[in-house]
Amino acid sequence: MRISGLAERTGVPVATIKYYLREGLVPAGEATSRTQASYGDRHVDRVRLVRALTESGGLSLAGVRDVLAALDDPPASRHALLGAAQGALLADESADVADDAVGEGVRRRAAAVVAARGWYDDPVLTARLAVQLRDAERAGVPVGDEHLEVLCDAAERVARADLATVPAAPAAAMRQVVVGTLLTDAVLLTLRRFAQQQESGRDEGADGQSVG
Amino acid sequence: MRISGLAERTGVPVATIKYYLREGLVPAGEATSRTQASYGDRHVDRVRLVRALTESGGLSLAGVRDVLAALDDPPASRHALLGAAQGALLADESADVADDAVGEGVRRRAAAVVAARGWYDDPVLTARLAVQLRDAERAGVPVGDEHLEVLCDAAERVARADLATVPAAPAAAMRQVVVGTLLTDAVLLTLRRFAQQQESGRDEGADGQSVG
Repeated sequence: MRISGLAERTGVPVATIKYYLREGLVPAGEATSRTQASYGDRHVDRVRLVRALTESGGLSLAGVRDVLAALDDPPASRHALLGAAQGALLADESADVADDAVGEGVRRRAAAVVAARGWYDDPVLTARLAVQLRDAERAGVPVGDEHLEVLCDAAERVARADLATVPAAPAAAMRQVVVGTLLTDAVLLTLRRFAQQQESGRDEGADGQSVG
Repeated sequence: MRISGLAERTGVPVATIKYYLREGLVPAGEATSRTQASYGDRHVDRVRLVRALTESGGLSLAGVRDVLAALDDPPASRHALLGAAQGALLADESADVADDAVGEGVRRRAAAVVAARGWYDDPVLTARLAVQLRDAERAGVPVGDEHLEVLCDAAERVARADLATVPAAPAAAMRQVVVGTLLTDAVLLTLRRFAQQQESGRDEGADGQSVG
């Protein structure tokens, strides 16, 4: 199909596809003349993927590049694969987190949470957790121990379901972990907001006030 | 204290504080001379809050403005308060979500999930959920029904804990809901990654392979 067909199939404007092509995020089509090229299903797939990563996933161009590189060259072991997948995600996300002046107390608390759960003490992840707990504290909304336990429990349940959905084939597994995690992050946070509205309505009801 | 003291107390550079002042995100100090002003604890608090919202929270300048407006003028009812709080957050986050061409099937699925849980069918949230499910599908990682149920369960547990931590006083409650939710969103996603590593290690172990 021509680039206009590719735009139609994917719902992504021609100008955006041309941008993806220029940036090397989507492979070039097969040249059919000096000014035209032909695109196939793999182009449809790649355009949709890049679009989802940048829109719902909120990845930068560099982040998309890292994720695509990981997808195109998946490691053989499941555990190594997850590591590479997370590496691709973390590299991008970490750019936003400033770890200036994280106090020793917060650092220890983050490490203690990780140790208590028996999780692997990944230095990048633990540093990020410390920064996030520090930021909440700084913003006047410190995360209490009980609240944090609930978040940990929820994370474990979700992770169990996440891993259960990972297919055996490395390429598909890599896509599931990298792209699936990124896109369901957004779903999870949306669901949290629905459930908060529900809980808040329940509170009002219990107080004998009208439920809005 | 002078602006240099404010920078020291908050860990935020003087140039950044001046930017917050220019943008009206932090109230002006009390003028002590033609070129100097004096700042107090409420400035320390506000600078930390703005920093946390932009860094960990990832809010745009407009988003910070909306959140601060909601915090400065909290509604009296708990439920109305949550609505206003979520409104402030959603207005910013929604800017990123393009709802071009969400199919009727996905739209119905999102509405069905919300109905099955007995959640309030908030049009902005439901549209967002539909876009996110559509994007996952487009990216080749559709969210299965079982997986989605687990995410819903996790969201409900987290929301129950979220609401349990909300203080009674409107201003404090507003801050807890708006800022607390935003900052613990980030914490939750970090914990998910830890737990994924753990689960993936468990898988390897079960397969008789070495755990990395």
